[in-house]
Amino acid sequence: MSDPRIAAAAPLAGLRIVEISSFVAAPLAGMTLAQLGAEVIRVDPVGGAADRNRWPLTEDGTSIYWAGLNKGKRSFVADLRSPEGQHLVARLITGSGPQGGILLTNTTGRDWQGYNALARVRPDLIHLEITGRGDGSTGVDYTVNAATGFPLVTGPPGHRGPVNHVVPVWDIACGLYAALAITAAVRRREATGAGSRLAIPLEDVALATASNLGFLGEAQLTGTERPRVGNALYGSYGQDFTSADGVCFMLVTLTPRHFRDLVSVTDTAEVVSALATALDADFADEGTRYRHREVLTAVFAGWFRTHSAEEIAAALSDTSILWERYRTFGELATDPRVTANPLFTDLQQPGLGTYRAAGAPISVDGTYPPARVAPQLGQHTDAVLRDDLGLTDADIARLHDTAPGATKRTNR
Amino acid sequence: MSDPRIAAAAPLAGLRIVEISSFVAAPLAGMTLAQLGAEVIRVDPVGGAADRNRWPLTEDGTSIYWAGLNKGKRSFVADLRSPEGQHLVARLITGSGPQGGILLTNTTGRDWQGYNALARVRPDLIHLEITGRGDGSTGVDYTVNAATGFPLVTGPPGHRGPVNHVVPVWDIACGLYAALAITAAVRRREATGAGSRLAIPLEDVALATASNLGFLGEAQLTGTERPRVGNALYGSYGQDFTSADGVCFMLVTLTPRHFRDLVSVTDTAEVVSALATALDADFADEGTRYRHREVLTAVFAGWFRTHSAEEIAAALSDTSILWERYRTFGELATDPRVTANPLFTDLQQPGLGTYRAAGAPISVDGTYPPARVAPQLGQHTDAVLRDDLGLTDADIARLHDTAPGATKRTNR
Repeated sequence: MSDPRIAAAAPLAGLRIVEISSFVAAPLAGMTLAQLGAEVIRVDPVGGAADRNRWPLTEDGTSIYWAGLNKGKRSFVADLRSPEGQHLVARLITGSGPQGGILLTNTTGRDWQGYNALARVRPDLIHLEITGRGDGSTGVDYTVNAATGFPLVTGPPGHRGPVNHVVPVWDIACGLYAALAITAAVRRREATGAGSRLAIPLEDVALATASNLGFLGEAQLTGTERPRVGNALYGSYGQDFTSADGVCFMLVTLTPRHFRDLVSVTDTAEVVSALATALDADFADEGTRYRHREVLTAVFAGWFRTHSAEEIAAALSDTSILWERYRTFGELATDPRVTANPLFTDLQQPGLGTYRAAGAPISVDGTYPPARVAPQLGQHTDAVLRDDLGLTDADIARLHDTAPGATKRTNR
Repeated sequence: MSDPRIAAAAPLAGLRIVEISSFVAAPLAGMTLAQLGAEVIRVDPVGGAADRNRWPLTEDGTSIYWAGLNKGKRSFVADLRSPEGQHLVARLITGSGPQGGILLTNTTGRDWQGYNALARVRPDLIHLEITGRGDGSTGVDYTVNAATGFPLVTGPPGHRGPVNHVVPVWDIACGLYAALAITAAVRRREATGAGSRLAIPLEDVALATASNLGFLGEAQLTGTERPRVGNALYGSYGQDFTSADGVCFMLVTLTPRHFRDLVSVTDTAEVVSALATALDADFADEGTRYRHREVLTAVFAGWFRTHSAEEIAAALSDTSILWERYRTFGELATDPRVTANPLFTDLQQPGLGTYRAAGAPISVDGTYPPARVAPQLGQHTDAVLRDDLGLTDADIARLHDTAPGATKRTNR
């Protein structure tokens, strides 16, 4: 029963997935499946999709963004507006044996790549569409986020108006749900022979999360509006503090022990005890700590204000308190948690140069599989035409000649 | 080959997963696997884990949070500090046939539930640990987020200091990576018979994401620090605007067509054209729109300021522009995207009452499986002892009597 071709670090080895994608969610899903061992062919139109040159860029205009989200894939370019190009891609999806027949896409409304057209040829097709909203209308991370309540409860308490997340949280979650849904559908197909028709609306990812975390339940069941509490941790005691030398720290106390350690390290036992008595408050209770967070914060802040970042870090390290110092991306890039973290590989990425790039954050038997380079656009077009689609060299040459740009010649 | 027991909407049917968990990431992973059809038994210590009474709460103190993150699971309570309780849970993990032997946990440092101890009994064990940081030290969402650069680039441009996410983005991503890793490991085990030892550090989820999205690459390759740009969309044109009646809207223009529509709907063609000439700027280019976002925003804002939210919504709906109006959780809870969205089920949740709760945001053949209620703490203890562990009624009674609270009697 042992199949040495499926290593623990590549549990999806053997699968062949076609990805017709752009932006974040679908490419992240495809990349994650590639990181787990699947062969993933990203299909782009001639010249690339709308995300081809998305910022951030290197000085010579190469997209660092694109390289980051397409690691480990093969790249196939075709004229997706021509019947011939569509037919090639459709064959790519439906061909390739029992472990093929899988499409991941965030382009919708194109019949030729829709479930019905493809399943006619490949009855056990696994077809996953990432869409904007459940009713079929458009939505992207920043607009979907606006539809939730999060922007109006994020940011400094005095702020008026919404505060957007810079990190596209819904794209990330959507991409991971998509990778999961495909993997589960594969498991089912390998047991039953049946395919699946799946869809994940980005907005529903956000709504489901707001539901899972209790935000919507709270609104429905208590009729209260969640307040904006800045950097505080809702319902518990967590807060940011600034050192004498202007460095910010985040502290979180989830347990009574964490809180006792915070009182101890800030040398505020007397004051806190007096407060507890005067307020008739048991600070061992999370909710009580939260209710009195402002006065507690005012009490603790003095110690932070009168110590350097180095002193604070040393003192906190000796406690059970959950804490971290804030930093910029530039500081993070030179921090040991990047430079000495086996999650990262020194990747020689054509178009970018050498940089430390992360693989999937899933360690197997204590080690991380290395990150792999992203392809150049169209890098594998000819190889796919020849090896996966069975075109002869003459066919391939004719494609390049009769429809200039119809397929992107390798390395142009 | 067709196995009618594995429906498309329950691709993980037959699997039996034990979850020893608390807080967000691990419970979300377990719940997502349950939503895909696996049987998930959440194991808690007597009286519940540290998240038992986490806010938000109903007026009578029931955790809406706990109910939201544990939908569809079975609940088993045991004294996890006693050898007898540990032995029962270990047997629960290692027993239950070829589709059992799966542990998902975020409690570490307990030998009895570690990979080595359990794999000795169950060689094909799938064991996944969610940890804080890669080196084994502690980390939670709010501290891990501080370690990344995101808080210092989030929030209003004039703001000094960090702005935390209210939504625990790293917990969410970590939970979904965990569900994916387990599902992929199941696929591999069903092909090979081999188990997997997996770990996902929460901090590495955040670092990998910062890498995937280009933030770390940008810092390494260009030496620039990402600026804080408020609600603007970095590298493109997206901005928030306020209506005459004080309602905020988020607009995103990713393509030249979106931008042309924005110019048209705001009736600013002349001004924008004059600007383009004077600035020698081609606004069809995303990066150019981003560079000149402040003057563009100043030009567009006039139209928003002089129209009501209703007028704006009607006008924008007739364009290709990606847009949304901001709202609170209270407004969202009564919006059709909750009240009329098949993602949501009218759930009669014991302890909370009836409320609309979301299932998994993955539609199968165009429909969503319904959400399922969360268990009461310990609700399934006796049934699991009897049916899964083979204890007799006499054994069960003895457990309850000789170690009061050692196992939680069902419905107490």
